[in-house]
Amino acid sequence: MNADATGGVSTEAGVGASELVRTVDSEWRARAAKVLPRGAYAHVRPEFYPPNYPQFWGRSEGARLWDVDGNSYLDLMCSWGPMIVGYGNAEVDAAFQAEVAVRDLAFGHSPRAVELAERLTGLIEGGDWAMFQKNGGDATTVAVMVARNATGKRKLLKAGPAYHGSTPAFTPWDRGVTPEERANTITFTYNDIASVEAAVAEAGDDFAALIVLPYRHDNGTDSVPIDPAFAKRVRELCDEHGAALILDDVRAGFRNDLHGSWAPLGIRPDLSAYSKCIANGYPLAAVVGAERFADAASEIYATGSFWYASGAMAAGLACLDILERDDGIGIMAARGTQLMDGLREQAQSHGVEVVVSGPPSMPNLTFTDGEPKQYAFIWAEEVLRRGVLVHPFHNWFLSTAHTEEDITQILEATDGGFAFLAAQAG
Amino acid sequence: MNADATGGVSTEAGVGASELVRTVDSEWRARAAKVLPRGAYAHVRPEFYPPNYPQFWGRSEGARLWDVDGNSYLDLMCSWGPMIVGYGNAEVDAAFQAEVAVRDLAFGHSPRAVELAERLTGLIEGGDWAMFQKNGGDATTVAVMVARNATGKRKLLKAGPAYHGSTPAFTPWDRGVTPEERANTITFTYNDIASVEAAVAEAGDDFAALIVLPYRHDNGTDSVPIDPAFAKRVRELCDEHGAALILDDVRAGFRNDLHGSWAPLGIRPDLSAYSKCIANGYPLAAVVGAERFADAASEIYATGSFWYASGAMAAGLACLDILERDDGIGIMAARGTQLMDGLREQAQSHGVEVVVSGPPSMPNLTFTDGEPKQYAFIWAEEVLRRGVLVHPFHNWFLSTAHTEEDITQILEATDGGFAFLAAQAG
Repeated sequence: MNADATGGVSTEAGVGASELVRTVDSEWRARAAKVLPRGAYAHVRPEFYPPNYPQFWGRSEGARLWDVDGNSYLDLMCSWGPMIVGYGNAEVDAAFQAEVAVRDLAFGHSPRAVELAERLTGLIEGGDWAMFQKNGGDATTVAVMVARNATGKRKLLKAGPAYHGSTPAFTPWDRGVTPEERANTITFTYNDIASVEAAVAEAGDDFAALIVLPYRHDNGTDSVPIDPAFAKRVRELCDEHGAALILDDVRAGFRNDLHGSWAPLGIRPDLSAYSKCIANGYPLAAVVGAERFADAASEIYATGSFWYASGAMAAGLACLDILERDDGIGIMAARGTQLMDGLREQAQSHGVEVVVSGPPSMPNLTFTDGEPKQYAFIWAEEVLRRGVLVHPFHNWFLSTAHTEEDITQILEATDGGFAFLAAQAG
Repeated sequence: MNADATGGVSTEAGVGASELVRTVDSEWRARAAKVLPRGAYAHVRPEFYPPNYPQFWGRSEGARLWDVDGNSYLDLMCSWGPMIVGYGNAEVDAAFQAEVAVRDLAFGHSPRAVELAERLTGLIEGGDWAMFQKNGGDATTVAVMVARNATGKRKLLKAGPAYHGSTPAFTPWDRGVTPEERANTITFTYNDIASVEAAVAEAGDDFAALIVLPYRHDNGTDSVPIDPAFAKRVRELCDEHGAALILDDVRAGFRNDLHGSWAPLGIRPDLSAYSKCIANGYPLAAVVGAERFADAASEIYATGSFWYASGAMAAGLACLDILERDDGIGIMAARGTQLMDGLREQAQSHGVEVVVSGPPSMPNLTFTDGEPKQYAFIWAEEVLRRGVLVHPFHNWFLSTAHTEEDITQILEATDGGFAFLAAQAG
């Protein structure tokens, strides 16, 4: 590899790739180094990306992003999920504008909160009430508080590496977190009935809740569908012990099923956490719960200055309308299938071993030969140079703004990436 | 008292008061009862307010709110603080609109994050870097995580009833919270040097951080200024033990001093938490920290899907510009002084014993004779019927949108409230 930190990459195998100018990005990095902690933090730190990735972003429209140097990319990250009907969607933005022209924050709720709660409880299987927050981590935290208040118990069961937010109880790194903040967490292995039964036994008579992702989407590993027998068993275990089954649909919600990601299984969670794409990027989160947890929900004290703002709720109503009216789930599934089929064919034709996993709306790619992480970085950087933004080791996201032609163009870039990688590896 | 739950109040002493129609509000309450947990939750539950208060809000503009029935009120709550330069402020809204017309969410930060971090570190005494979140509780949580990561220690010292957010570690109610989540919290008494020294002794060699409000603004009690000797002593204690001094300026920040609420004391916190009014209601929070905590801040994993959205940051830049250009602090101090002086005179002239406390930008009123809570409810409801929204037991907020004439009109309403209360009590 002839890559260096400035993003200079030899292009002998890079047909169709362009050099990405980073002049303006470098200027912003220099300014950021003085006023952001070490220039960046959390998941956007540059060391998590190939060297030629930009740090600062300039423009977004439809399914496309531009960095601050004006390089343009078809975007497969959708801002980590929130964008679902296109950046700058005219209908969602108009709904937000119309609401904030009248009101946004007030002393309490606007009617939009009731309308959105009616919409969510109408959509989500088993949902009888809704509460609103801002972050996905607010929603998972509130769900756990409701469960603990309802049951009077403490133990929370979760799959080992599953991400449920970056609060002290859940954040994947232990820096700045005390052991006590996680003292009541018991882990199990996703899709492993014996392990979850062992976790329930360990919780004993202190089993408050089990929080679970709708399918396994742990970073850096292949995505794995939910085993229906496992889902059925966790539902049974929660029922047997009076514990709450919390479905964390923050990342996957509204991309695979508008009625809840486990609706196709016929398994109803007691509490569901939503956030990312409810309002196409306007900050919003929600807990949707079953009637038997309504008292417990009304009794906890969890709130925030911006949790009653109605502009994002109006945007959420518009976003859900679009997804339902236009069969957004069907569009994303079709585009994602086109992409995943293409990726598998390309990898095979170039002799590169990969696993393409996940639901079509949230594809995941891992390399399984050579040095997987290095291969992912090389490939992703080459794809970027061909005008497509992918993450090297986190799942991607489709939106209804991605057209069939966009996917064709994306596949040209991914093919170039595989060709480059095959040449380098060979 | 001839008040009942429907808001019918006898008006014999209510000169100038109007009957407040609640037809539309009742309709929304009926719908809410079916889809929000028990119809409402957290601090907006109706039982915290006089019976005639509306639950649902219809419009906001400048310093004025309208409920869903079209009743209009001069607003002294500023949406619990976020509104600081007027609802629908044209300059802030234009800055937000201009930013989101180009971009809002992306794969990472936009240049606005750097500009706002430059602005905050330029303003806040001792601030060398900034990180952004959504909720005030995110900012206090991140500050504590940074402190614990920097020190490798666990104990957090806080004033007993001080509010620092509604996360499990801080929420004032214990419902849904495990004892373990608060196991590392040690409480002290605000402004009591001996009690904070005892708390430091109890922490021993495990003293990570002390979090403190810039002045005591605990709900339901008189506000109390910071004792400079106390502030100096907590700074010394943190220095002696290598612990972080965290100033929670979420509620008071940018209403009393643009350089940090303890800047006039010459006491520099290590970490400051901001949120409510940075962006005049657009959701945003920030931790501003000293250089020696920069590594620790860059190493924790705390993030959120909407923490990189740049529209709110552009709004924040515009809001801070307005506050600085127009001497917003001076305007709020003048209006608040006019209000507080008037309240004291009115109460005395009506023979009602009250304490008016707090900085002028955040007045607090408590009744000290009769039945304080009942008196507060009676008075607040009468003030509401005269067209002014106050909270019966939480501090209020001034904004730069409040004019001298607004305060004169507010004082007419509060005088009517005192007259009514005096007649009822007499």
